[in-house]
Amino acid sequence: MKTPAIVINFKTYQQVVGEKGIELAKICENIAKKEDVEIVIVPQMVDLGVIAKSVSIPVFSQHVDAVEPGSKTGHTTAEAVKGAGGTGTLINHSEMRMRIADIDFAVEKCRELGLETIVCSNNLEVSKACSLTNPGYIAVEPPELIGGDVSVTTANPEIVRNTVNAIKNINPNVKVLCGAGVKNGKDVAKALELGAEGVLLASGVVKAKNPKDVLMDLISGI
Amino acid sequence: MKTPAIVINFKTYQQVVGEKGIELAKICENIAKKEDVEIVIVPQMVDLGVIAKSVSIPVFSQHVDAVEPGSKTGHTTAEAVKGAGGTGTLINHSEMRMRIADIDFAVEKCRELGLETIVCSNNLEVSKACSLTNPGYIAVEPPELIGGDVSVTTANPEIVRNTVNAIKNINPNVKVLCGAGVKNGKDVAKALELGAEGVLLASGVVKAKNPKDVLMDLISGI
Amino acid sequence: MKTPAIVINFKTYQQVVGEKGIELAKICENIAKKEDVEIVIVPQMVDLGVIAKSVSIPVFSQHVDAVEPGSKTGHTTAEAVKGAGGTGTLINHSEMRMRIADIDFAVEKCRELGLETIVCSNNLEVSKACSLTNPGYIAVEPPELIGGDVSVTTANPEIVRNTVNAIKNINPNVKVLCGAGVKNGKDVAKALELGAEGVLLASGVVKAKNPKDVLMDLISGI
Amino acid sequence: MKTPAIVINFKTYQQVVGEKGIELAKICENIAKKEDVEIVIVPQMVDLGVIAKSVSIPVFSQHVDAVEPGSKTGHTTAEAVKGAGGTGTLINHSEMRMRIADIDFAVEKCRELGLETIVCSNNLEVSKACSLTNPGYIAVEPPELIGGDVSVTTANPEIVRNTVNAIKNINPNVKVLCGAGVKNGKDVAKALELGAEGVLLASGVVKAKNPKDVLMDLISGI
Repeated sequence: MKTPAIVINFKTYQQVVGEKGIELAKICENIAKKEDVEIVIVPQMVDLGVIAKSVSIPVFSQHVDAVEPGSKTGHTTAEAVKGAGGTGTLINHSEMRMRIADIDFAVEKCRELGLETIVCSNNLEVSKACSLTNPGYIAVEPPELIGGDVSVTTANPEIVRNTVNAIKNINPNVKVLCGAGVKNGKDVAKALELGAEGVLLASGVVKAKNPKDVLMDLISGI
Repeated sequence: MKTPAIVINFKTYQQVVGEKGIELAKICENIAKKEDVEIVIVPQMVDLGVIAKSVSIPVFSQHVDAVEPGSKTGHTTAEAVKGAGGTGTLINHSEMRMRIADIDFAVEKCRELGLETIVCSNNLEVSKACSLTNPGYIAVEPPELIGGDVSVTTANPEIVRNTVNAIKNINPNVKVLCGAGVKNGKDVAKALELGAEGVLLASGVVKAKNPKDVLMDLISGI
Repeated sequence: MKTPAIVINFKTYQQVVGEKGIELAKICENIAKKEDVEIVIVPQMVDLGVIAKSVSIPVFSQHVDAVEPGSKTGHTTAEAVKGAGGTGTLINHSEMRMRIADIDFAVEKCRELGLETIVCSNNLEVSKACSLTNPGYIAVEPPELIGGDVSVTTANPEIVRNTVNAIKNINPNVKVLCGAGVKNGKDVAKALELGAEGVLLASGVVKAKNPKDVLMDLISGI
Repeated sequence: MKTPAIVINFKTYQQVVGEKGIELAKICENIAKKEDVEIVIVPQMVDLGVIAKSVSIPVFSQHVDAVEPGSKTGHTTAEAVKGAGGTGTLINHSEMRMRIADIDFAVEKCRELGLETIVCSNNLEVSKACSLTNPGYIAVEPPELIGGDVSVTTANPEIVRNTVNAIKNINPNVKVLCGAGVKNGKDVAKALELGAEGVLLASGVVKAKNPKDVLMDLISGI
């Protein structure tokens, strides 16, 4: 994944069930190719393989379990993600929190397999802690930016800048994504200006009446 | 899914990562078609969509989470399974145990969506309890048949027959699969004779040097 | 525990932290003794031993883990509950849901040790399923009675009666407690009239300005 | 808790059920008083309150849940631990692993309440990550010292020293306990020499025929 990047988490929204998920993946691919920007998509777990075969932009998993291949019915190994054509994965998303020992296992296993890793975190202390497991990226959700109408452009700019600096202080190899408070191109531009190297968002694109328009607006900020 | 059925759980074995999983799915499909027997496959989570598009035999999910579509990153909804082309799912596999309220939710949601359900259980009491959530199938693993070299043909025949009878007593609509102690065609024949309407197995096929031979042997028991 | 019984779950309310929990336990004991009614208390986990030593009414645990004694730091075994002076336990409370195989393990282990068991359940199917694990009691929370101002006296009487009958049909040895919709003596009387053999409640007593008054009102319904 | 300290985790061993747990607590107290050494005990969850009332040495909880007081049946809040007389808690024990966001919550909540915290960790990366949540102590279990007959005295001394140094580098306020490889007084002495400020052990004392003798041997290393 190149930076700056726009990462779109499909979650498990009705809007991406079945063929609709493949369509949204192709919309993302078209814009990424035409506009020469990095868009990474994170489809539903059961669609990972089919979408990875359908597009040539990076496809990430929403999760990997901290287990080795074997007798692990219902789990998703990093090996399975790679085999299905995924090139990376979210880890420790707020809707799929993991134990710290498991984050460490998953990040290391992905590194061995050549999968990229975005570890999500909920505040400054956890972001710093997670950066020590050596992921490629930390996606931060500063509590001040969660919910409501606060965006990175309207918020105190120190919030994002301080988080970026704190993580870089602990582990300069880790890149930071802004995982909250991004809704349009201005927000993207501001997030990048404040030191983030990309953004992670979901409903703003997936639940949009016209995802293409939202995406075009978002990339205008790069 | 028609009965008698042979259900093959791919688990997360190295032997089914990526293209190898699609190959095994096609081997199963070929035999099912040529021999006119019911073979159901249960691929890795991230391969579900791509395999469902590759074969025309029933493809089941290894698991569904007891959640509605929405903000549930990393989870798998019944809606996603159906959208990806799955026609059913395992529920409460011994490697992915669920809470009873969640089993109840998942079975009912699948029924609404027209997905078939195989609830796995570990002993007689749990089998009977689970049968009251009205799944299509209960896959029983009588403790006496787990591990070692005991198979349904060498074991006390009462073990399977009693389980089948106990479940039928509680809920006659539920069909029973034999989820342990089945390795070859003789075991399949014995399981069916004792009242099971199919078998669920994994490593015996998936890790076999020649899965086709094992499958041909298994279906000889039908 | 004798029936009819009033079971008071202390949960983890601020109102029962430390000495305050012991005080509430003694209030319950005084009323139980003076009025000759069965009141069972369910204190915070860490207070179980000290409260069991302080009162002579039945003291239940809020939970037991489905594990054997041994290397299980942070867990609570049935053996520990018994050793601390507990005489029973809640199992599968809505705030501590358990896997069905674990409910089965916990109920059986408690039976072996002579501990009484109240398995909580959220609807008719789950209640019926849980009754097959042979607990002493099922505490039902009919969805129609959860939250709001609906009580067993104002609700359609069939709701509770049907649940009681359904459980008795499946397993006549199981007694039923009414776990929702009970706030005062009239509700207790109605619950008993409809076939319940006791009630389970929490905040109505624990968060009351004067728990003694609430308890006196409740027992007036017996 | 003063350092150097010997922390004894009672786990859920049969040897500490009921009165036997109180006896072991008193043995620890007697030695701590007579020999003027710091011994911290970590009894079973349900015995915390009663043991805290029985002895005057520090009593820690085996676990706290990352929840606020309220409707959390079966959970253990930091408030409950403090109310019961506990003065600290283990967090993230290998038998009770927690999510990183929850470790962060629990450590901060304990700090607010004046409870001491020992966060357990399984390797160097996780130890470093956890140290950023600002616990009082990290109890490290270097993989090289787990199981078998390897102790800190027979192992490569760099293993413990490197861990201590790495944690001190990240957060100099955090003290380190040696959580594996300690069986006797020589091991204690070696652990302290290598930079640890205490040891955490369990079965070596709890399952001993004569715990007093083992404890006397251990404190000879201080």
